[in-house]
Amino acid sequence: MNIKENIIQSHQRISPYIHRTPVFTSQMINEIAGVSLFFKCENFQKMGAFKMRGATNAILQLSDEQKKKGVVTHSSGSFAQALALAAKNLNINAYIVMPNNAPEVKKKAVHEYGGIITECEPTLEDRETTANQIQLEKGATFIHPFNDFNVILGNASVGKELLEYHPELDIIVVPVGGGGLISGTILSALAFGNNCTIIGAEPFNVDDAYRSLESGKIEHNLTTDTIADGLKTSLGDITFNIINNHLKTIIRVTEDEIVDAMQLILERMKIIVEPSSAVTLAAVLKSKQEFFNKKVGLILSGGNIDFRKLPF
Amino acid sequence: MNIKENIIQSHQRISPYIHRTPVFTSQMINEIAGVSLFFKCENFQKMGAFKMRGATNAILQLSDEQKKKGVVTHSSGSFAQALALAAKNLNINAYIVMPNNAPEVKKKAVHEYGGIITECEPTLEDRETTANQIQLEKGATFIHPFNDFNVILGNASVGKELLEYHPELDIIVVPVGGGGLISGTILSALAFGNNCTIIGAEPFNVDDAYRSLESGKIEHNLTTDTIADGLKTSLGDITFNIINNHLKTIIRVTEDEIVDAMQLILERMKIIVEPSSAVTLAAVLKSKQEFFNKKVGLILSGGNIDFRKLPF
Repeated sequence: MNIKENIIQSHQRISPYIHRTPVFTSQMINEIAGVSLFFKCENFQKMGAFKMRGATNAILQLSDEQKKKGVVTHSSGSFAQALALAAKNLNINAYIVMPNNAPEVKKKAVHEYGGIITECEPTLEDRETTANQIQLEKGATFIHPFNDFNVILGNASVGKELLEYHPELDIIVVPVGGGGLISGTILSALAFGNNCTIIGAEPFNVDDAYRSLESGKIEHNLTTDTIADGLKTSLGDITFNIINNHLKTIIRVTEDEIVDAMQLILERMKIIVEPSSAVTLAAVLKSKQEFFNKKVGLILSGGNIDFRKLPF
Repeated sequence: MNIKENIIQSHQRISPYIHRTPVFTSQMINEIAGVSLFFKCENFQKMGAFKMRGATNAILQLSDEQKKKGVVTHSSGSFAQALALAAKNLNINAYIVMPNNAPEVKKKAVHEYGGIITECEPTLEDRETTANQIQLEKGATFIHPFNDFNVILGNASVGKELLEYHPELDIIVVPVGGGGLISGTILSALAFGNNCTIIGAEPFNVDDAYRSLESGKIEHNLTTDTIADGLKTSLGDITFNIINNHLKTIIRVTEDEIVDAMQLILERMKIIVEPSSAVTLAAVLKSKQEFFNKKVGLILSGGNIDFRKLPF
């Protein structure tokens, strides 16, 4: 089965469990940017982020035997919530390994979605060890937040829907964290786009993907000092491979540019996006010449923020 | 011409200048409320509030001679911005009388929409005198923010669109300030509803409309101490007349209930609404028995808030 057919089937498979999110436009932001922008609103997705798509697709690809034993992941971010909710929707167990220093609000959200939380030390090693142990004890299947082809195929439905809405997009701008969303979008653009280019957007402070593209190998971040907390992760081998083969450009933006773009979206579009989503608009506003006279899609990846800690 | 035909024509007249706003639903809020809710998102309206509809309709009903001389209103609220933008869209002058203690951010917004601001003392008397003077000097036509039948007919298009989206709504809940929105919605429900009841929602702290319904005459507020700053105004004779003849119920809510509902909308629906909009959901959550087993529309009247002053 080719990629196109694979994406179509994944999309059909997850459709009963996800929202087909709307595409918003804003005349005022178009005027500011000097370009026609089409915002794909995954902040309105169930559980507030695109990750519901990949999580749901990965679970639905399991055998009945596997489903009975549940799934396990380690994540302090929104994939934990996504896997918990996707599993709940399908009536299976989700074991979520979370670092013991994860914010209470995130643990609470996972719990509310029915996830079974196991706390671990806040190191990658202990996260992996703990997840391994659960795999052994429960027979649960490990599902990686992004470095998993079924997760990527599920995420690819975002770009597919956007290109079905507007087949003539010249460019789609996508945030780059672990690379699960942009990998899926690259595959969708190849399958459904009409010469549609994908451009990545990443904070300067965690520009591992930018550096990985430069060096040709997976680079890591020495610090993770960014407001865009969904984008701190490094690439995996699967996502790096797709990105390295197909992506030409990643635009890096400063923290101030992210905050300004987030504020612009909130004030002008009246919608809530998380900082990780706002990097896309920040990239367009920073590199207007790159987008001049183009029809540009932007993926607003999620909307889970803490209002008590707004940066403006 | 009957009311129904009047609303249809008003809607057609303003359609090129306004958004047909979407209707949102939220499974999670439905579960919390125990009722099916349909949110009409006027927070996505141009300039961020339903007032664009009434302002545009009122201007479009002027003669060419009148249009040449412009329009004038006094308002420190969003009608000032609405009239300025509606006038700009139609290439005519809008003279806006604003109290000299109005927040800078509001003056700036009116200015950016092209409104010509005249400041006055912060008393109703001086507002009216100053507006009168501009009428005399410029020949501009005075347009009242809500106590104007053409404004009400323009506002009625909100309810018309909502009932076109969902003709079987049992109830529509509408915030009550000066009564311009609820009057229009009452007329729309009579014209396009299928036994659709209108219910008002109002803060306890400015419950002038509730008391007006009780006493059978226009009551005023002794204090205006509410976060829902769009709802401080008293009714006018036109809006009172419509409300008094057709409205049975106004549900009053506390400031805490408004804040909680606003937070719920932001967190669960990922959209920005102003406190005046959140009174509708607050009213439903407060009086669940009133809405049990009903299909309920809620009008989210606007989304203009200052993020630096969030109440939570």
